[in-house]
Amino acid sequence: MPFINIKVLKGTLSAEEKQEMILRVTEAVAEIEARPSPKEKILPHSWCVIEEVDFENWGIGGNAVTPEMLKAILEG
Amino acid sequence: MPFINIKVLKGTLSAEEKQEMILRVTEAVAEIEARPSPKEKILPHSWCVIEEVDFENWGIGGNAVTPEMLKAILEG
Amino acid sequence: MPFINIKVLKGTLSAEEKQEMILRVTEAVAEIEARPSPKEKILPHSWCVIEEVDFENWGIGGNAVTPEMLKAILEG
Amino acid sequence: MPFINIKVLKGTLSAEEKQEMILRVTEAVAEIEARPSPKEKILPHSWCVIEEVDFENWGIGGNAVTPEMLKAILEG
Amino acid sequence: MPFINIKVLKGTLSAEEKQEMILRVTEAVAEIEARPSPKEKILPHSWCVIEEVDFENWGIGGNAVTPEMLKAILEG
Amino acid sequence: MPFINIKVLKGTLSAEEKQEMILRVTEAVAEIEARPSPKEKILPHSWCVIEEVDFENWGIGGNAVTPEMLKAILEG
Repeated sequence: MPFINIKVLKGTLSAEEKQEMILRVTEAVAEIEARPSPKEKILPHSWCVIEEVDFENWGIGGNAVTPEMLKAILEG
Repeated sequence: MPFINIKVLKGTLSAEEKQEMILRVTEAVAEIEARPSPKEKILPHSWCVIEEVDFENWGIGGNAVTPEMLKAILEG
Repeated sequence: MPFINIKVLKGTLSAEEKQEMILRVTEAVAEIEARPSPKEKILPHSWCVIEEVDFENWGIGGNAVTPEMLKAILEG
Repeated sequence: MPFINIKVLKGTLSAEEKQEMILRVTEAVAEIEARPSPKEKILPHSWCVIEEVDFENWGIGGNAVTPEMLKAILEG
Repeated sequence: MPFINIKVLKGTLSAEEKQEMILRVTEAVAEIEARPSPKEKILPHSWCVIEEVDFENWGIGGNAVTPEMLKAILEG
Repeated sequence: MPFINIKVLKGTLSAEEKQEMILRVTEAVAEIEARPSPKEKILPHSWCVIEEVDFENWGIGGNAVTPEMLKAILEG
């Protein structure tokens, strides 16, 4: 019965990437939770909700993240 | 002082249904919290926030929910 | 697929009251979500998690709640 | 490593006020967390996410907040 | 800057399993978020918090989960 | 009506520091929310809940935080 909540910056994930993230994260959690039973036992009881947060609503170190800051992190 | 948070799929509730949900859930929680005092004592101190989540952001068993899945559950 | 989260002050609910709260809140939410289908369609897909918060961790108006404040509210 | 989450009513804060809120809240939290070290040690590891909630999704005492209720509180 | 929150039933994970869950989930999320940059760019900025919930505080379908229910799911 | 939630590492704050954090954060949020009315208008309607998270449940970059990591950050 795990419940997973993932907050990400809005606009950084496509619908396909969100689906991939839901699948990979849920499978990893279910596999560990189910042990030594197979992950399929827990998988149907595992939820994952993604929340997309506007850049100007996400502060790090007291400052809202900007696309430039994210770019610098990714390419730094 | 209860704080209630309800995540639902976006588009499944009208404004009237959201108001009804807020009222019924808050009253049930306040009534139990206030015992043996009447629920009116706690009611003004009870908050309920509804969050509406896009279908593609809500995964069950590793897959994002679709309107078709919801329909199948409701009519199954 | 509603997910309900209820924060309450620690020590204010017995195990029986927590079970009653889970049942009544989940049924109210499922009934409204399922409409016009019966609530039983959504009920198995409805989760409710209660979080119990220490008095000293819950601030109202800038001050941590005390048992005396709660008593005054309930008996006021 | 504090993580701060602030839910506010949608439309009540400008982008500048959100930035100010993120800065002041994060600095206050980091300063207390870092003691007796300076707040700068913890600040880069402090996150603050603002969530803006529609009036009709925020219930107090069982009723969704309205702009009129908020106005009455502010001017009362 | 993803923030991951995982609620699990208390007592179902060892410290080693929690560490494994944190690592695998964070890496999956960071890898997808960072694309086409390598996951190492986002990894240091990715947080994952596990919350352990008492069985009697987690309701499914209106009833608190019991160890027997979990056992039935795992061995069913 | 702001609702503030602060997750911190367990054991890093005394009861007095938690009270100070609640007060300072709530006042900062209320002052900005209330503008141009005085913060006292919103303060009674402002809640702040602190959640204390075990070190082994808080992952950064895929690894659970340790007291040694925190010490290195504070004294680094």
